[in-house]
Amino acid sequence: MTQLSIIPIDGIGEIQVGDDLAGIIAAAADLADGDVLVVTQKIVSKAEGMLEAVDPDDPLSHKTIVERESLRVLRRRGDLVISETKHGFVCANAGVDLSNVERGYAALLPEDSDRSARRIRDGIKARANVDVAVIISDTFGRTWRRGLTDVAIGCAGIGAILDLRGSSDAYGREMQVTEVAVVDEIASAAELVMGKATGVPAAIVRGIPSDWLRKGEVRAEIVRAPEEDLFR
Amino acid sequence: MTQLSIIPIDGIGEIQVGDDLAGIIAAAADLADGDVLVVTQKIVSKAEGMLEAVDPDDPLSHKTIVERESLRVLRRRGDLVISETKHGFVCANAGVDLSNVERGYAALLPEDSDRSARRIRDGIKARANVDVAVIISDTFGRTWRRGLTDVAIGCAGIGAILDLRGSSDAYGREMQVTEVAVVDEIASAAELVMGKATGVPAAIVRGIPSDWLRKGEVRAEIVRAPEEDLFR
Repeated sequence: MTQLSIIPIDGIGEIQVGDDLAGIIAAAADLADGDVLVVTQKIVSKAEGMLEAVDPDDPLSHKTIVERESLRVLRRRGDLVISETKHGFVCANAGVDLSNVERGYAALLPEDSDRSARRIRDGIKARANVDVAVIISDTFGRTWRRGLTDVAIGCAGIGAILDLRGSSDAYGREMQVTEVAVVDEIASAAELVMGKATGVPAAIVRGIPSDWLRKGEVRAEIVRAPEEDLFR
Repeated sequence: MTQLSIIPIDGIGEIQVGDDLAGIIAAAADLADGDVLVVTQKIVSKAEGMLEAVDPDDPLSHKTIVERESLRVLRRRGDLVISETKHGFVCANAGVDLSNVERGYAALLPEDSDRSARRIRDGIKARANVDVAVIISDTFGRTWRRGLTDVAIGCAGIGAILDLRGSSDAYGREMQVTEVAVVDEIASAAELVMGKATGVPAAIVRGIPSDWLRKGEVRAEIVRAPEEDLFR
Protein backbone atom coordinates (compact mmCIF):
# COMPACT_ATOMS: atom_id res chain seq x y z
CA MET A 1 0.00 0.00 0.00
CA THR A 2 1.35 3.39 -0.91
CA GLN A 3 0.65 6.61 0.92
CA LEU A 4 -2.33 8.90 0.53
CA SER A 5 -2.43 12.67 0.23
CA ILE A 6 -5.37 14.71 1.48
CA ILE A 7 -5.34 18.05 -0.32
CA PRO A 8 -7.71 20.93 0.50
CA ILE A 9 -9.15 22.80 -2.50
CA ASP A 10 -8.90 26.55 -2.00
CA GLY A 11 -10.55 29.25 -4.05
CA ILE A 12 -14.00 27.72 -4.57
CA GLY A 13 -15.63 30.84 -3.17
CA GLU A 14 -19.30 31.40 -2.45
CA ILE A 15 -21.66 28.99 -4.24
CA GLN A 16 -25.03 30.28 -5.54
CA VAL A 17 -28.15 28.49 -6.72
CA GLY A 18 -27.59 27.18 -10.24
CA ASP A 19 -23.79 27.38 -10.14
CA ASP A 20 -21.87 24.85 -12.21
CA LEU A 21 -20.14 23.11 -9.30
CA ALA A 22 -18.15 20.70 -11.51
CA GLY A 23 -16.79 23.59 -13.56
CA ILE A 24 -15.93 25.67 -10.49
CA ILE A 25 -14.11 22.78 -8.81
CA ALA A 26 -12.31 21.75 -12.01
CA ALA A 27 -11.05 25.33 -12.34
CA ALA A 28 -9.97 25.60 -8.68
CA ALA A 29 -8.25 22.21 -8.33
CA ASP A 30 -5.49 20.40 -10.13
CA LEU A 31 -7.38 17.11 -10.48
CA ALA A 32 -5.82 13.91 -11.79
CA ASP A 33 -7.23 10.58 -13.00
CA GLY A 34 -7.95 8.32 -10.03
CA ASP A 35 -8.40 11.14 -7.52
CA VAL A 36 -11.29 10.94 -5.10
CA LEU A 37 -12.96 14.35 -4.85
CA VAL A 38 -14.84 14.96 -1.60
CA VAL A 39 -17.43 17.76 -1.73
CA THR A 40 -19.39 18.91 1.31
CA GLN A 41 -23.17 18.60 1.21
CA LYS A 42 -23.60 22.31 1.91
CA ILE A 43 -22.27 23.54 -1.43
CA VAL A 44 -24.06 20.77 -3.34
CA SER A 45 -27.35 21.75 -1.67
CA LYS A 46 -26.71 25.42 -2.48
CA ALA A 47 -25.87 24.79 -6.14
CA GLU A 48 -28.98 22.59 -6.43
CA GLY A 49 -31.19 25.20 -4.80
CA MET A 50 -32.02 23.06 -1.76
CA LEU A 51 -32.53 26.18 0.36
CA GLU A 52 -35.63 27.36 2.12
CA ALA A 53 -36.36 30.76 3.61
CA VAL A 54 -36.63 30.90 7.41
CA ASP A 55 -37.17 33.69 9.93
CA PRO A 56 -33.65 35.12 10.39
CA ASP A 57 -34.45 36.24 13.95
CA ASP A 58 -35.70 32.85 15.15
CA PRO A 59 -32.89 30.36 15.86
CA LEU A 60 -35.46 27.52 15.77
CA SER A 61 -37.12 28.66 12.55
CA HIS A 62 -35.93 25.58 10.65
CA LYS A 63 -37.64 23.18 13.02
CA THR A 64 -40.86 23.00 11.00
CA ILE A 65 -38.76 22.01 7.98
CA VAL A 66 -37.06 19.37 10.14
CA GLU A 67 -40.43 17.87 11.06
CA ARG A 68 -41.54 17.82 7.41
CA GLU A 69 -38.26 16.25 6.22
CA SER A 70 -38.43 13.52 8.90
CA LEU A 71 -39.93 10.28 7.68
CA ARG A 72 -39.83 8.95 11.23
CA VAL A 73 -38.65 10.66 14.43
CA LEU A 74 -36.56 8.27 16.52
CA ARG A 75 -35.77 10.45 19.52
CA ARG A 76 -36.34 13.97 20.79
CA ARG A 77 -34.44 15.75 23.51
CA GLY A 78 -35.03 19.45 23.96
CA ASP A 79 -34.57 21.06 20.55
CA LEU A 80 -32.72 18.05 19.19
CA VAL A 81 -34.54 15.69 16.85
CA ILE A 82 -32.94 12.42 15.69
CA SER A 83 -34.87 11.24 12.70
CA GLU A 84 -34.83 9.09 9.61
CA THR A 85 -34.94 11.03 6.36
CA LYS A 86 -36.62 9.95 3.13
CA HIS A 87 -33.13 9.06 1.87
CA GLY A 88 -32.76 6.55 4.71
CA PHE A 89 -30.21 8.53 6.73
CA VAL A 90 -30.57 8.68 10.50
CA CYS A 91 -29.21 12.01 11.69
CA ALA A 92 -29.90 15.12 13.74
CA ASN A 93 -32.55 17.53 12.42
CA ALA A 94 -33.08 15.47 9.25
CA GLY A 95 -29.89 17.01 7.88
CA VAL A 96 -31.45 20.49 7.78
CA ASP A 97 -29.21 23.25 9.11
CA LEU A 98 -28.39 26.92 9.22
CA SER A 99 -24.60 26.97 9.50
CA ASN A 100 -22.58 28.18 6.52
CA VAL A 101 -25.79 29.32 4.81
CA GLU A 102 -26.80 32.92 4.14
CA ARG A 103 -28.81 34.45 6.99
CA GLY A 104 -32.53 33.80 6.53
CA TYR A 105 -32.09 30.42 4.80
CA ALA A 106 -31.84 26.79 5.86
CA ALA A 107 -30.09 24.17 3.72
CA LEU A 108 -31.76 20.80 3.10
CA LEU A 109 -30.04 17.61 1.95
CA PRO A 110 -29.82 17.06 -1.82
CA GLU A 111 -32.76 15.09 -3.23
CA ASP A 112 -30.45 12.21 -4.25
CA SER A 113 -26.81 12.60 -3.24
CA ASP A 114 -25.61 9.61 -5.28
CA ARG A 115 -27.07 11.30 -8.36
CA SER A 116 -25.45 14.60 -7.32
CA ALA A 117 -22.10 12.80 -7.09
CA ARG A 118 -22.57 11.24 -10.54
CA ARG A 119 -23.38 14.64 -12.03
CA ILE A 120 -20.26 16.23 -10.56
CA ARG A 121 -18.14 13.28 -11.75
CA ASP A 122 -19.61 13.52 -15.27
CA GLY A 123 -19.25 17.31 -15.27
CA ILE A 124 -15.58 17.12 -14.36
CA LYS A 125 -14.96 14.52 -17.05
CA ALA A 126 -16.67 16.79 -19.59
CA ARG A 127 -14.87 19.97 -18.52
CA ALA A 128 -11.38 18.77 -17.54
CA ASN A 129 -11.22 15.32 -19.15
CA VAL A 130 -10.17 13.64 -15.89
CA ASP A 131 -11.76 10.56 -14.33
CA VAL A 132 -12.35 11.21 -10.66
CA ALA A 133 -14.52 9.48 -8.08
CA VAL A 134 -16.81 11.81 -6.12
CA ILE A 135 -18.05 11.61 -2.54
CA ILE A 136 -20.63 14.02 -1.08
CA SER A 137 -19.92 14.38 2.65
CA ASP A 138 -21.97 15.53 5.62
CA THR A 139 -21.36 15.78 9.35
CA PHE A 140 -23.30 13.28 11.49
CA GLY A 141 -23.35 12.31 15.15
CA ARG A 142 -22.98 8.76 16.41
CA THR A 143 -25.25 6.83 18.73
CA TRP A 144 -22.68 5.73 21.30
CA ARG A 145 -19.87 8.23 20.92
CA ARG A 146 -19.57 11.96 21.53
CA GLY A 147 -18.48 14.28 18.79
CA LEU A 148 -19.29 14.39 15.09
CA THR A 149 -17.51 12.90 12.09
CA ASP A 150 -17.99 13.33 8.38
CA VAL A 151 -19.59 10.47 6.46
CA ALA A 152 -20.55 9.94 2.82
CA ILE A 153 -24.16 10.67 1.84
CA GLY A 154 -23.51 10.03 -1.86
CA CYS A 155 -20.78 8.66 -4.11
CA ALA A 156 -19.93 7.92 -7.73
CA GLY A 157 -17.02 6.09 -9.34
CA ILE A 158 -16.03 4.34 -6.10
CA GLY A 159 -17.53 1.41 -4.25
CA ALA A 160 -19.06 2.53 -0.97
CA ILE A 161 -18.09 -0.71 0.76
CA LEU A 162 -14.88 -2.71 0.37
CA ASP A 163 -15.92 -6.31 0.91
CA LEU A 164 -13.08 -8.43 2.29
CA ARG A 165 -15.22 -11.44 3.22
CA GLY A 166 -13.60 -14.57 1.90
CA SER A 167 -10.10 -13.09 1.78
CA SER A 168 -7.54 -14.21 4.35
CA ASP A 169 -5.98 -12.45 7.31
CA ALA A 170 -2.21 -12.41 7.95
CA TYR A 171 -2.53 -15.90 9.51
CA GLY A 172 -4.38 -17.42 6.55
CA ARG A 173 -7.67 -17.42 8.49
CA GLU A 174 -10.69 -16.48 6.40
CA MET A 175 -11.93 -13.00 7.28
CA GLN A 176 -15.38 -12.97 8.80
CA VAL A 177 -17.30 -9.71 9.16
CA THR A 178 -15.13 -7.36 7.19
CA GLU A 179 -17.02 -4.97 5.00
CA VAL A 180 -15.22 -1.67 5.30
CA ALA A 181 -17.20 1.52 4.64
CA VAL A 182 -14.33 3.15 2.77
CA VAL A 183 -16.38 6.12 1.48
CA ASP A 184 -17.15 7.08 5.09
CA GLU A 185 -13.47 6.75 6.02
CA ILE A 186 -12.50 8.91 3.03
CA ALA A 187 -15.12 11.53 3.97
CA SER A 188 -13.67 11.63 7.49
CA ALA A 189 -10.12 11.93 6.16
CA ALA A 190 -11.14 14.86 3.94
CA GLU A 191 -12.89 16.65 6.83
CA LEU A 192 -9.52 16.92 8.58
CA VAL A 193 -8.33 19.44 5.95
CA MET A 194 -11.66 21.20 5.41
CA GLY A 195 -12.62 22.29 8.87
CA LYS A 196 -15.96 23.88 9.55
CA ALA A 197 -15.19 27.56 9.51
CA THR A 198 -12.38 27.85 7.01
CA GLY A 199 -14.34 28.13 3.79
CA VAL A 200 -12.77 25.00 2.28
CA PRO A 201 -15.75 22.94 1.05
CA ALA A 202 -13.90 20.31 -0.98
CA ALA A 203 -10.74 18.21 -0.89
CA ILE A 204 -8.85 15.68 -2.98
CA VAL A 205 -7.87 12.26 -1.63
CA ARG A 206 -5.06 11.02 -3.85
CA GLY A 207 -3.60 7.51 -3.86
CA ILE A 208 -6.72 5.35 -3.37
CA PRO A 209 -6.14 1.87 -4.93
CA SER A 210 -7.53 1.75 -8.46
CA ASP A 211 -9.46 -1.45 -7.78
CA TRP A 212 -11.67 0.45 -5.29
CA LEU A 213 -12.83 2.65 -8.16
CA ARG A 214 -15.99 1.10 -9.52
CA LYS A 215 -19.68 1.85 -9.74
CA GLY A 216 -20.92 2.56 -6.22
CA GLU A 217 -23.81 4.04 -4.27
CA VAL A 218 -24.23 5.10 -0.67
CA ARG A 219 -27.96 4.44 -0.77
CA ALA A 220 -27.67 0.85 -2.04
CA GLU A 221 -24.57 -0.12 -0.07
CA ILE A 222 -24.46 1.86 3.18
CA VAL A 223 -27.99 2.83 4.12
CA ARG A 224 -29.31 0.16 6.49
CA ALA A 225 -32.96 -0.74 6.05
CA PRO A 226 -34.99 -0.18 9.25
CA GLU A 227 -36.03 -3.84 9.35
CA GLU A 228 -32.38 -4.89 9.20
CA ASP A 229 -31.10 -2.89 12.13
CA LEU A 230 -31.18 -3.70 15.80
CA PHE A 231 -32.01 -0.34 17.34
CA ARG A 232 -35.01 1.08 15.44
CA MET B 1 -4.93 24.45 5.94
CA THR B 2 -2.12 22.48 4.38
CA GLN B 3 -2.33 18.95 3.09
CA LEU B 4 -2.04 15.74 5.05
CA SER B 5 -0.04 12.62 4.26
CA ILE B 6 -1.17 9.17 5.38
CA ILE B 7 1.86 6.89 5.40
CA PRO B 8 1.69 3.13 6.06
CA ILE B 9 4.45 1.71 8.28
CA ASP B 10 5.91 -1.45 6.78
CA GLY B 11 8.22 -3.93 8.44
CA ILE B 12 6.67 -4.11 11.90
CA GLY B 13 6.41 -7.88 11.62
CA GLU B 14 4.77 -10.28 14.05
CA ILE B 15 4.19 -8.89 17.54
CA GLN B 16 4.61 -11.17 20.57
CA VAL B 17 3.57 -10.80 24.19
CA GLY B 18 6.00 -8.48 25.97
CA ASP B 19 7.39 -6.89 22.81
CA ASP B 20 8.56 -3.30 23.05
CA LEU B 21 6.05 -1.84 20.61
CA ALA B 22 7.42 1.72 20.84
CA GLY B 23 10.93 0.50 20.03
CA ILE B 24 9.76 -1.67 17.14
CA ILE B 25 7.70 1.15 15.59
CA ALA B 26 10.44 3.73 16.12
CA ALA B 27 12.86 1.41 14.29
CA ALA B 28 10.45 0.70 11.41
CA ALA B 29 9.20 4.25 10.79
CA ASP B 30 10.80 7.57 10.05
CA LEU B 31 8.84 9.52 12.65
CA ALA B 32 8.96 13.31 12.97
CA ASP B 33 7.84 15.77 15.65
CA GLY B 34 4.13 16.50 15.30
CA ASP B 35 3.28 13.21 13.55
CA VAL B 36 0.20 11.35 14.67
CA LEU B 37 1.00 7.65 14.93
CA VAL B 38 -2.01 5.36 14.57
CA VAL B 39 -1.54 1.83 15.94
CA THR B 40 -4.16 -0.90 15.58
CA GLN B 41 -5.60 -2.39 18.74
CA LYS B 42 -4.58 -5.89 17.70
CA ILE B 43 -0.83 -5.38 18.06
CA VAL B 44 -1.26 -3.37 21.26
CA SER B 45 -3.34 -6.19 22.76
CA LYS B 46 -0.72 -8.76 21.66
CA ALA B 47 2.21 -6.80 23.09
CA GLU B 48 0.28 -6.33 26.34
CA GLY B 49 -0.61 -10.02 26.53
CA MET B 50 -4.36 -9.46 26.21
CA LEU B 51 -4.77 -12.91 24.64
CA GLU B 52 -6.77 -15.84 25.87
CA ALA B 53 -6.62 -19.47 24.73
CA VAL B 54 -9.70 -20.76 22.91
CA ASP B 55 -10.60 -24.06 21.23
CA PRO B 56 -9.02 -23.73 17.76
CA ASP B 57 -11.63 -26.03 16.22
CA ASP B 58 -14.65 -24.10 17.52
CA PRO B 59 -15.39 -20.87 15.60
CA LEU B 60 -17.60 -19.69 18.49
CA SER B 61 -15.10 -20.54 21.20
CA HIS B 62 -14.56 -16.88 22.09
CA LYS B 63 -18.22 -16.32 22.88
CA THR B 64 -17.86 -17.13 26.59
CA ILE B 65 -15.14 -14.47 26.77
CA VAL B 66 -17.49 -12.05 24.98
CA GLU B 67 -20.16 -12.62 27.64
CA ARG B 68 -17.66 -12.11 30.45
CA GLU B 69 -16.25 -8.92 28.88
CA SER B 70 -19.74 -7.46 28.36
CA LEU B 71 -20.83 -5.11 31.10
CA ARG B 72 -24.27 -4.94 29.52
CA VAL B 73 -25.61 -6.70 26.43
CA LEU B 74 -27.66 -4.29 24.31
CA ARG B 75 -28.74 -6.57 21.47
CA ARG B 76 -28.31 -10.15 20.29
CA ARG B 77 -28.97 -11.51 16.82
CA GLY B 78 -27.79 -15.01 16.04
CA ASP B 79 -24.12 -15.16 17.02
CA LEU B 80 -23.78 -11.42 17.09
CA VAL B 81 -23.69 -9.64 20.44
CA ILE B 82 -23.71 -5.83 20.67
CA SER B 83 -22.58 -4.91 24.13
CA GLU B 84 -21.10 -2.25 26.33
CA THR B 85 -17.60 -3.02 27.59
CA LYS B 86 -16.13 -2.01 30.93
CA HIS B 87 -14.26 0.72 29.03
CA GLY B 88 -17.60 2.22 27.95
CA PHE B 89 -17.37 1.20 24.28
CA VAL B 90 -20.45 -0.13 22.54
CA CYS B 91 -19.33 -2.62 19.90
CA ALA B 92 -19.75 -6.11 18.50
CA ASN B 93 -18.54 -9.01 20.66
CA ALA B 94 -17.16 -6.67 23.35
CA GLY B 95 -14.16 -6.06 21.08
CA VAL B 96 -13.02 -9.71 21.42
CA ASP B 97 -11.96 -11.31 18.15
CA LEU B 98 -10.02 -14.04 16.41
CA SER B 99 -8.85 -12.38 13.20
CA ASN B 100 -5.15 -11.62 12.82
CA VAL B 101 -4.41 -13.61 16.00
CA GLU B 102 -2.55 -16.91 16.18
CA ARG B 103 -4.85 -19.91 15.84
CA GLY B 104 -6.12 -21.00 19.27
CA TYR B 105 -6.19 -17.50 20.75
CA ALA B 106 -8.66 -14.62 21.01
CA ALA B 107 -7.53 -11.01 21.44
CA LEU B 108 -9.22 -8.80 24.04
CA LEU B 109 -9.18 -5.00 24.15
CA PRO B 110 -6.32 -3.39 26.10
CA GLU B 111 -7.19 -2.73 29.75
CA ASP B 112 -6.89 1.05 29.26
CA SER B 113 -6.18 2.15 25.68
CA ASP B 114 -5.52 5.79 26.62
CA ARG B 115 -2.79 4.54 28.96
CA SER B 116 -1.47 2.25 26.19
CA ALA B 117 -1.29 5.27 23.87
CA ARG B 118 0.57 7.31 26.50
CA ARG B 119 3.09 4.49 26.99
CA ILE B 120 3.79 4.22 23.27
CA ARG B 121 4.12 8.01 23.03
CA ASP B 122 6.53 8.10 25.98
CA GLY B 123 8.44 5.09 24.64
CA ILE B 124 8.97 6.74 21.26
CA LYS B 125 10.12 9.95 22.94
CA ALA B 126 12.61 7.94 25.00
CA ARG B 127 13.91 5.83 22.10
CA ALA B 128 13.82 8.20 19.12
CA ASN B 129 13.55 11.62 20.80
CA VAL B 130 10.54 12.63 18.70
CA ASP B 131 7.26 14.02 20.00
CA VAL B 132 4.40 12.16 18.38
CA ALA B 133 0.73 11.89 19.23
CA VAL B 134 -0.59 8.32 19.38
CA ILE B 135 -4.02 6.91 18.56
CA ILE B 136 -5.00 3.28 19.19
CA SER B 137 -7.56 2.28 16.55
CA ASP B 138 -10.15 -0.47 16.32
CA THR B 139 -12.82 -1.42 13.79
CA PHE B 140 -16.40 -0.83 14.92
CA GLY B 141 -19.82 -1.07 13.30
CA ARG B 142 -22.38 1.73 13.31
CA THR B 143 -25.98 1.63 14.46
CA TRP B 144 -27.62 3.05 11.33
CA ARG B 145 -25.11 2.39 8.59
CA ARG B 146 -23.73 -0.75 6.99
CA GLY B 147 -20.05 -1.43 6.92
CA LEU B 148 -17.32 -0.87 9.48
CA THR B 149 -14.97 2.04 10.05
CA ASP B 150 -11.95 2.47 12.27
CA VAL B 151 -12.35 4.64 15.36
CA ALA B 152 -10.03 5.64 18.19
CA ILE B 153 -10.20 3.61 21.41
CA GLY B 154 -7.30 5.48 23.02
CA CYS B 155 -5.14 8.52 22.39
CA ALA B 156 -2.26 10.55 23.81
CA GLY B 157 -0.77 13.89 22.83
CA ILE B 158 -3.83 14.93 20.83
CA GLY B 159 -7.25 16.18 21.87
CA ALA B 160 -9.91 13.60 21.05
CA ILE B 161 -12.47 16.31 20.27
CA LEU B 162 -11.92 19.60 18.45
CA ASP B 163 -14.43 21.98 19.99
CA LEU B 164 -15.51 24.71 17.57
CA ARG B 165 -18.47 25.95 19.61
CA GLY B 166 -18.30 29.70 19.87
CA SER B 167 -16.26 30.15 16.71
CA SER B 168 -17.89 31.57 13.60
CA ASP B 169 -18.84 30.01 10.29
CA ALA B 170 -17.98 31.58 6.92
CA TYR B 171 -20.99 33.91 7.32
CA GLY B 172 -20.02 35.10 10.79
CA ARG B 173 -22.75 33.04 12.42
CA GLU B 174 -21.74 31.43 15.70
CA MET B 175 -21.26 27.66 15.26
CA GLN B 176 -23.73 25.61 17.24
CA VAL B 177 -23.17 21.89 17.71
CA THR B 178 -19.70 21.46 16.34
CA GLU B 179 -17.52 19.18 18.34
CA VAL B 180 -15.52 17.19 15.83
CA ALA B 181 -14.22 13.77 16.88
CA VAL B 182 -10.90 14.27 15.12
CA VAL B 183 -9.23 11.19 16.61
CA ASP B 184 -11.94 9.01 15.08
CA GLU B 185 -11.51 10.76 11.72
CA ILE B 186 -7.73 10.24 11.91
CA ALA B 187 -8.20 6.54 12.79
CA SER B 188 -10.48 6.17 9.74
CA ALA B 189 -7.96 7.96 7.51
CA ALA B 190 -5.18 5.64 8.69
CA GLU B 191 -7.28 2.51 8.07
CA LEU B 192 -7.32 3.39 4.37
CA VAL B 193 -3.61 2.56 4.09
CA MET B 194 -3.54 -0.31 6.57
CA GLY B 195 -6.19 -2.64 5.23
CA LYS B 196 -7.19 -5.75 7.14
CA ALA B 197 -5.14 -8.45 5.47
CA THR B 198 -1.97 -6.67 4.48
CA GLY B 199 0.03 -6.95 7.68
CA VAL B 200 0.34 -3.17 8.06
CA PRO B 201 -0.72 -2.50 11.66
CA ALA B 202 0.34 1.15 11.98
CA ALA B 203 0.44 4.36 9.98
CA ILE B 204 1.61 7.95 10.26
CA VAL B 205 -0.72 10.91 9.72
CA ARG B 206 1.50 13.89 8.96
CA GLY B 207 0.38 17.51 8.78
CA ILE B 208 -2.15 17.71 11.63
CA PRO B 209 -2.34 21.33 12.94
CA SER B 210 -0.06 21.75 15.94
CA ASP B 211 -2.83 23.34 18.02
CA TRP B 212 -4.72 20.02 17.98
CA LEU B 213 -1.80 18.43 19.82
CA ARG B 214 -2.62 18.62 23.50
CA LYS B 215 -3.43 16.31 26.38
CA GLY B 216 -6.36 14.15 25.29
CA GLU B 217 -8.29 11.02 26.20
CA VAL B 218 -10.84 8.95 24.33
CA ARG B 219 -12.41 7.78 27.57
CA ALA B 220 -13.00 11.26 29.00
CA GLU B 221 -13.90 12.99 25.72
CA ILE B 222 -15.54 10.48 23.36
CA VAL B 223 -17.14 7.75 25.47
CA ARG B 224 -20.77 8.69 25.99
CA ALA B 225 -22.16 7.86 29.41
CA PRO B 226 -25.20 5.55 29.22
CA GLU B 227 -27.38 8.11 31.02
CA GLU B 228 -26.44 10.72 28.44
CA ASP B 229 -27.38 8.84 25.31
CA LEU B 230 -30.76 8.46 23.67
CA PHE B 231 -30.72 4.82 22.60
CA ARG B 232 -29.62 2.75 25.62
